[in-house]
Amino acid sequence: MSARAIRADTEEKDMSEERPSGDPIRVLVWGENRHEVLEPHVAELYPEGMHTTIAEGLRRVLGPSVEVRTATLDEPEHGLDEQALEWADVLTWWGHKAHREVQDEVVDRVQQQVLSGLGLLVLHSGHFSKIFRRLMGTTCSLSWRNDGRQERVWTVDPGHPIAEGVPNPIRIDKQEMYGEFFDIPAPDELVFISSFEGGEVFRSGCTFRRGNGRIFYFSPGDQEYPVYDHPDVQRVIANGVRWARDPRGERRLPGLRRVAERSVW
Amino acid sequence: MSARAIRADTEEKDMSEERPSGDPIRVLVWGENRHEVLEPHVAELYPEGMHTTIAEGLRRVLGPSVEVRTATLDEPEHGLDEQALEWADVLTWWGHKAHREVQDEVVDRVQQQVLSGLGLLVLHSGHFSKIFRRLMGTTCSLSWRNDGRQERVWTVDPGHPIAEGVPNPIRIDKQEMYGEFFDIPAPDELVFISSFEGGEVFRSGCTFRRGNGRIFYFSPGDQEYPVYDHPDVQRVIANGVRWARDPRGERRLPGLRRVAERSVW
Amino acid sequence: MSARAIRADTEEKDMSEERPSGDPIRVLVWGENRHEVLEPHVAELYPEGMHTTIAEGLRRVLGPSVEVRTATLDEPEHGLDEQALEWADVLTWWGHKAHREVQDEVVDRVQQQVLSGLGLLVLHSGHFSKIFRRLMGTTCSLSWRNDGRQERVWTVDPGHPIAEGVPNPIRIDKQEMYGEFFDIPAPDELVFISSFEGGEVFRSGCTFRRGNGRIFYFSPGDQEYPVYDHPDVQRVIANGVRWARDPRGERRLPGLRRVAERSVW
Amino acid sequence: MSARAIRADTEEKDMSEERPSGDPIRVLVWGENRHEVLEPHVAELYPEGMHTTIAEGLRRVLGPSVEVRTATLDEPEHGLDEQALEWADVLTWWGHKAHREVQDEVVDRVQQQVLSGLGLLVLHSGHFSKIFRRLMGTTCSLSWRNDGRQERVWTVDPGHPIAEGVPNPIRIDKQEMYGEFFDIPAPDELVFISSFEGGEVFRSGCTFRRGNGRIFYFSPGDQEYPVYDHPDVQRVIANGVRWARDPRGERRLPGLRRVAERSVW
Repeated sequence: MSARAIRADTEEKDMSEERPSGDPIRVLVWGENRHEVLEPHVAELYPEGMHTTIAEGLRRVLGPSVEVRTATLDEPEHGLDEQALEWADVLTWWGHKAHREVQDEVVDRVQQQVLSGLGLLVLHSGHFSKIFRRLMGTTCSLSWRNDGRQERVWTVDPGHPIAEGVPNPIRIDKQEMYGEFFDIPAPDELVFISSFEGGEVFRSGCTFRRGNGRIFYFSPGDQEYPVYDHPDVQRVIANGVRWARDPRGERRLPGLRRVAERSVW
Repeated sequence: MSARAIRADTEEKDMSEERPSGDPIRVLVWGENRHEVLEPHVAELYPEGMHTTIAEGLRRVLGPSVEVRTATLDEPEHGLDEQALEWADVLTWWGHKAHREVQDEVVDRVQQQVLSGLGLLVLHSGHFSKIFRRLMGTTCSLSWRNDGRQERVWTVDPGHPIAEGVPNPIRIDKQEMYGEFFDIPAPDELVFISSFEGGEVFRSGCTFRRGNGRIFYFSPGDQEYPVYDHPDVQRVIANGVRWARDPRGERRLPGLRRVAERSVW
Repeated sequence: MSARAIRADTEEKDMSEERPSGDPIRVLVWGENRHEVLEPHVAELYPEGMHTTIAEGLRRVLGPSVEVRTATLDEPEHGLDEQALEWADVLTWWGHKAHREVQDEVVDRVQQQVLSGLGLLVLHSGHFSKIFRRLMGTTCSLSWRNDGRQERVWTVDPGHPIAEGVPNPIRIDKQEMYGEFFDIPAPDELVFISSFEGGEVFRSGCTFRRGNGRIFYFSPGDQEYPVYDHPDVQRVIANGVRWARDPRGERRLPGLRRVAERSVW
Repeated sequence: MSARAIRADTEEKDMSEERPSGDPIRVLVWGENRHEVLEPHVAELYPEGMHTTIAEGLRRVLGPSVEVRTATLDEPEHGLDEQALEWADVLTWWGHKAHREVQDEVVDRVQQQVLSGLGLLVLHSGHFSKIFRRLMGTTCSLSWRNDGRQERVWTVDPGHPIAEGVPNPIRIDKQEMYGEFFDIPAPDELVFISSFEGGEVFRSGCTFRRGNGRIFYFSPGDQEYPVYDHPDVQRVIANGVRWARDPRGERRLPGLRRVAERSVW
């Protein structure tokens, strides 16, 4: 089994081996890939699927410091078998109409990996994915209206690495509106807030840490608009990937741990 | 259906009706009630079950400002049917050896109620209950050693209502040790940290808000020691109950909400 | 000296005496009261000063459960002598053009009181007051544009007591725009986010806890518009006052505390 | 003026230039350097001053990826003139008996630099320094007892970069006790909690973000014990320095910013 297999965290902590910092970040871009196949106007925007566009954006911004693969719902185990997840440093997730088709065993597996140190980026309608709801514990519901009007993404934490090199605001010409109340736990860090032409606001860039894993939710990105071609959106996703990567070389699931001996002061 | 039935939060928010502040807080004390029945030394400490002792502690501290009922695992639906949950303002949860016997449908129901505004106190080994893990999204694992030695509970947030009237530290003569790493999301507020005779530390009093609900985890309270007879522990639980109560008169589950019309500036 | 004089927190903590919960909340509304005196169009909106309007709003919403006094910059010690501060449970602060005229000794005194348990509401341009900057440690700067257009105040934490009974959004017809980046520490709780007709967003309702004190910053309320006559704004301020009140009967300044004896486990 | 001079943040944000990630981190280690000069038993532990030992620890752990200078109280401007602060990516601060001798102008300058992006590590008795109290807004008081007994530093956030490669717990044989209540704002992240032989606990590793700056408080390190020779303590400080460094190439002070034009949706 590879060195990245999850280990239970039941021994005295070792000095962890760090991967050489020069190693590229390995990103697995997961896409539901249904709208793109079934709906011509989406296929026109994303002829090879949104996952491909997202992957290319990462390569464009991060160059040789990233290694990207993609996986989609209709692959065996949704392309998310143990080996694929162990390979990845960071997983990005876009899903919408087929959340229910994602198998619970796969969700269990992804959750275990995230709690063990796999970084996770949840994009747009992924707010309602099983994996995000599982990790948040809340309904993750929100308000919405698909009227293809403007969104602006404002930085409220300019010192955060995910905001690096990002204009304030990002201007997106056509987007679906996502508004509050967004039923998530208070994020550990709030990086972006969006405004919409209809006057609504949304906490559009939120970080969460769970177990040994880092999670970044970023809301821009509906299938009906070419949002993932937007260079600033690509930049945010690239920054998110860099932030979400655990520099440690191994993956550990926090575990129940019996401390047999009382140590003596 | 009662006024406390959960309503989907899909309409324009109304001015909410507040329950008269003089109304007693309705607390449902849930106990697994197995150790007390099966193990003589536990039965001796808690002849009517830990839930009964916890309930009495609430009545002692809060007097007429509280109304308390109890429920246990072996009742139909574990004593947690819709009606019982709608009645309650706050639910307290103690479980240990039979976490797996709690039916998933009941866990679903409790989660919905908490997200809709039911307060929840999770006590001691309840850290590993299905409901707590569900709401946290993490493993909720920790370190432990049952050697019946001292615990001290230190207040690190003296202005918090849950710390009101609580000595610093609370001294508990005999307790199981619970130590870090405790795999929970960073709590919204950290109220207490415990130290143990063996030198360990534990984040023993943590608050979390999820949906419209308030959650307080408090770790003291093993079945093998008379911790729930301790007046300071009773005081903390009573403070927790007062804090966890949602003053609003109705329960609402955050829901997906389509905003049909774009409003005009 | 009154029972509310600050005591150093250098002894073993006592069971604190709670004030009877039926006691009215004592609020001191502080106003700079310069624009109202010097500028006719402001005087027309607030003929008796903004502090008077704010005070009346509190009385309207909270009735006999509140007792309100006012104080202004040009009174001796700005109306903020020891006695006035000891009397108050909560202080509200509006200032703008004369921040620099507030004496440093008075700022010291208010800071000590807040850290000892006095609640503080900082309103609108009070973001740049000495007391707020002192308590935050940051520049508290922001973006702004006074074009008298619409603001909407969205609730992002509907279970928070400060959001009780508040419509989502609050609509304010004419207001100055305050936008991000707002240079404050990440708030302990984010309750409201505002959007503006020009597309900007602002974290307009933020809570902070410092020492034993609770601080609520709420941004609506420019002197050029009748914002403090708005019933929803009055409701938020009233909720803020209830939230910021420390239920404990005495005021204690956290102090350095030598623990002479090592206790024995 | 150098590229690191603070710029007011009053223009549209530019794509920031990142310093090449291979550049060494520039750390300025500041020491009060009084105990070491005046007290023979301290001079014996730290013959060249604690600042020298801290600097050497950084070089030992970080090697060529760090460049370290030192500065002390008795130098002109305490060795903290504009040039020195502009040079540094991160400043570490140890002071104790002479906090009051630090000039207010220098404190102003350091605060401006931190809010503009200079990283700051505050060590042990630095909790009572002017700069830390200024940035926190609270009294920063705590409990203490100098009895030279054991401290253990427990990791409560194992996924945090500051905890990388740090054993859990760190065992320090002789240390002064620092206990709660520690009057700081709730930290943005709590990384370490210490326990002491006398049973006390302390939030010993806390992060705060203020403006564009990152602050890490770490409590181990009294002048009477050789704590800064401890390899695990050196490791934590080195991790802290890496974490506190702002990757951006320039320093910007958040500023008031008038947005003249309302943009059109």
